[in-house]
Amino acid sequence: MTTSPRDPGRAHIVGLGLIGGSIGLALRALGWQVSGEDVDDGVVSRAVATGAVDGPGTPADVDRADLVFVATPVAAIPAAAATVLERPGRRPGSVVTDVGGVKGPIVAALDRPGFVGGHPMAGSEQSGIEGADAELFVGATWVLTPTVSTEPEGYTLLRSVISELGADVVELSPAGHDELVAVVSHVPHLTAATLMNLAADQAVEHAALLRLAAGGFRDMTRIAAGQPGIWPDICVDNAGAIVATLDQLIESLGDMRARVARGDRAALLDVLGRATVARRALGVQAEAPDHLAEMRVPVRDDPGAIAEVTTLAAELGINIADVEIAHSVEGDRGVLVLTTPAGDAPRLADALTARGYRAAVTPVGTR
Amino acid sequence: MTTSPRDPGRAHIVGLGLIGGSIGLALRALGWQVSGEDVDDGVVSRAVATGAVDGPGTPADVDRADLVFVATPVAAIPAAAATVLERPGRRPGSVVTDVGGVKGPIVAALDRPGFVGGHPMAGSEQSGIEGADAELFVGATWVLTPTVSTEPEGYTLLRSVISELGADVVELSPAGHDELVAVVSHVPHLTAATLMNLAADQAVEHAALLRLAAGGFRDMTRIAAGQPGIWPDICVDNAGAIVATLDQLIESLGDMRARVARGDRAALLDVLGRATVARRALGVQAEAPDHLAEMRVPVRDDPGAIAEVTTLAAELGINIADVEIAHSVEGDRGVLVLTTPAGDAPRLADALTARGYRAAVTPVGTR
Repeated sequence: MTTSPRDPGRAHIVGLGLIGGSIGLALRALGWQVSGEDVDDGVVSRAVATGAVDGPGTPADVDRADLVFVATPVAAIPAAAATVLERPGRRPGSVVTDVGGVKGPIVAALDRPGFVGGHPMAGSEQSGIEGADAELFVGATWVLTPTVSTEPEGYTLLRSVISELGADVVELSPAGHDELVAVVSHVPHLTAATLMNLAADQAVEHAALLRLAAGGFRDMTRIAAGQPGIWPDICVDNAGAIVATLDQLIESLGDMRARVARGDRAALLDVLGRATVARRALGVQAEAPDHLAEMRVPVRDDPGAIAEVTTLAAELGINIADVEIAHSVEGDRGVLVLTTPAGDAPRLADALTARGYRAAVTPVGTR
Repeated sequence: MTTSPRDPGRAHIVGLGLIGGSIGLALRALGWQVSGEDVDDGVVSRAVATGAVDGPGTPADVDRADLVFVATPVAAIPAAAATVLERPGRRPGSVVTDVGGVKGPIVAALDRPGFVGGHPMAGSEQSGIEGADAELFVGATWVLTPTVSTEPEGYTLLRSVISELGADVVELSPAGHDELVAVVSHVPHLTAATLMNLAADQAVEHAALLRLAAGGFRDMTRIAAGQPGIWPDICVDNAGAIVATLDQLIESLGDMRARVARGDRAALLDVLGRATVARRALGVQAEAPDHLAEMRVPVRDDPGAIAEVTTLAAELGINIADVEIAHSVEGDRGVLVLTTPAGDAPRLADALTARGYRAAVTPVGTR
C-alpha cells in the first residue's frame, strides 16, 4: 500500500521553485515517484533535467498522488490548492499541503479533511529550481497546522514523510504559527531592512559610516540582503500579527529610549542582561558564542588569498563556521573574517602566521 | 629620536584590560618600551607576567612617554587622562589618547594640544588582560578624532603607530564618531536586545517559538549575547545620538507599520528593495555593484568545501570580491554566497557545476 509511512509513494508538486524542487529531489531520493507542474514550462523542463521530478504531471498523476505539495508564491496557494482538492477523480485519503510562510488566511480558505497547512522554515537564502537541494530540509523546522477538520490518517502520512525528509515537525494552530513567525521572522526582517536603510541614508552624508559597520551590524542586517519580492504578500497576509508585533517592538524601543534619556544605568543593565541570558540560551549548540572564535586576517584582493587561507584551514581539519570579507575603502586589500571553533583558532592562527599572515583572534560575543 | 614614526619609542598605558594589554603587547612586539598602571595591582602584575608591559609605570615613566594610552572604562577616562596631561614634568610633544567607545564628552573635557580622542573598534573593556592579544587590532577600524587644538606632529606620530599595529585609521570629528556609532553599533545593539526580549517573553507562553527561530533571527540577535556590562556607561555618555537614532528608528518602524496596516505592497517592495541593495553593497564597497554578480552555492559545513570553491575560483583567476556563509538552519549545512565580477560568474558557475555543486547566479542589486 502506498499510504504506509515507510513505503515510497507518489507525489505531485505544484510550483517548482527552490522549495518545490527540493521536495521533489528529497522525495525521489527516498524512492517516491514525483510529478510536477509550474506556470513556467521552462522551469518544468529544468526540474526534469535536474531530477527534481520524474516528469510533468498529467491530470491522472495529480489524481493518483498520495501527497500534493503546493509550493507556489503565497498569493497563488489558495486557488492552486483548491483546484487540486476539487478534482472529482482524486484518490480518496490523499493529502494536499502547502509551504506558504503565512497560514491563517490559507487554512481558512482551504479548511477541509484533505488539506493540511505547512511551512518548512528553510531555504530563504536561495531562489529558483537551480538552488534546489535534496537535503534542504535536514535539520530544519517544518510547521504543520492541522485543524479539527483534518483527516487523521492522511495527516499521519504527511507528518511521517516530512520527518523522513530530515525536518523537525512542529504542530501549531494556523493563528499560533502566524503570531510566532511575526516575532521570529517577519518583524525581524522588517527591522533589519529599516536599520539598513537608516544606515544607508546616513552613509550618503557620512562616507565613513560603513567603514565603522563591524560584525554586529553585518549580522543584524544580513537578512535584509534576501529576496525582497516575497515580503509584500507575506506582510499583507499576516498584517494583523505583524502590526501587533511592530507595536510591541516600537513600545519596547520607546521604553529603551526613556531609559537612555534619563540615564538609568540600572534599568539598562537589567534589560540588556536579560537579553544576554535569553540569547545565550537560544544558541545551545554550534551557535554558543563561548565555543566560537573570530579571526581577522588582512589579505590582498587577489584570487589566491582566500583560497590559501581556507585551504590551510581544511588541511588542518578546522571547520569554518562563517567567513566574510571586510573591505577597506581605499586600495586593494581587505580583511578576511573567519569564525571557527574557539579551540581550533590558535592552531589556525599559528599556521597562518607561519605563512606570513597576521591573524587576530577574539572570542565571539565580546565585541 | 624617539618621536620619529619609524623608530620604536616609549609608551605608558593607563588601564590594563583587554584593550590596554593588547596595545602593550603590540607595541612591545614593535620594539617599544612600555610601562603600565591599573587600579588593580594584581592586574599590573599579570600584565608584566604576560609581557603586555615591561613594568609598572613610575611618574618618571609617564613623563618620558612619547604616547600615553588611557584604556580605562569610559566613565574613568576624563579624570585619568587629565591627570597625565596636567603633569608638569611631561615631555613636550608627547601625546595622550584614549580608547573609549564614545568621543564627544571625553574630547570636550580634554580638548588641548596634547590629547587626541581614539576608538579602536575591536575587543571589549570587559574581557581583561587574559584576553590581550598583540594582533587584536589587525584589520580593525581605529577611529581618531583630532580637533583644531590638536598638535600636528604628535597626531602624525599617533596615527603612524596605530597603522603599525595593523589597524585602519578613520578620522572623524568627536560628534561625527558618536552619531555614526549610534547608527551602526549602539542602536543595533539595543534593538537586538529588544527583539530578543520580545521573543523570550512570548516563548514563556508559546514554547514552540524558539524552535521557529532560524538563521535570520539568530543573526539579528547574536550581538545581544555579548557582555551587557559595558553598555550602561556608553548609553549614558552617548545619550544624545542614541536617543536621536532611536527616534529615527521608531519613526521608520512606524512608517513600516503603516505600510503593512494599509496593505501597500508597492511601498513595501520599494523600501525592502532599497535595503537589499544597500546590504548587498555593504560587503563590496571597493567595486561598483553594477559590475558584480552574486552566486549562491549550497555547501556542507565541512572544512574542505569552502576551500574547494575558493581554490577553484583562484585556479580560474577569478577574484572573489565578497564571500559569506548563510546558515539557513542550525544544522551542518549552509549556503556560500560569493560575489565576483559579473563577467566571470558564468565561468565559475560552470566549473562548480562540473564538480557537482549547484550555483545560482544573480547580478548584484537586481533581485
